[in-house]
Amino acid sequence: MYEVKVFVTLKEAVLDPQGSAVKNSLHHLGYEGVEDVRIGKVLTLRIDSSADKVEAVVQEMCEKLLANTVIEDYRYEIEEVVTS
Amino acid sequence: MYEVKVFVTLKEAVLDPQGSAVKNSLHHLGYEGVEDVRIGKVLTLRIDSSADKVEAVVQEMCEKLLANTVIEDYRYEIEEVVTS
Repeated sequence: MYEVKVFVTLKEAVLDPQGSAVKNSLHHLGYEGVEDVRIGKVLTLRIDSSADKVEAVVQEMCEKLLANTVIEDYRYEIEEVVTS
Repeated sequence: MYEVKVFVTLKEAVLDPQGSAVKNSLHHLGYEGVEDVRIGKVLTLRIDSSADKVEAVVQEMCEKLLANTVIEDYRYEIEEVVTS
């Protein structure tokens, strides 16, 4: 069993209206020091797979479904979960 | 200048319909080994603040706006950005 964290973020060049909205809200709350906010997703998956296949499977899932690679970048961390 | 990453995730006991939808989609694509998907947010902030205040400010922003602490947990990583 593997626990996989996939981080999906908008590419640098893509506008992030959700991030802008949060930045404005923070300014209204008095946090003027906030200069930029970008918002992405973190997906935590539990996958039952063999050790030699898990990375290829994760990459394929990212390309096919989890990230929109036209506007988003992704990276992932794979950790084996030992169940006793 | 600090770069702060805030990870906001649903608490364990809270249902995650978005995660369930992604899990079902992955099953339909043939990834039957996926046993669980949970979806959270990652916010990347750039904050102009003094070293002694930045952590308190980040914590306050999380409590007030960035996370809904009734249903969400948060954690953060603070990194100083050296601009040359």
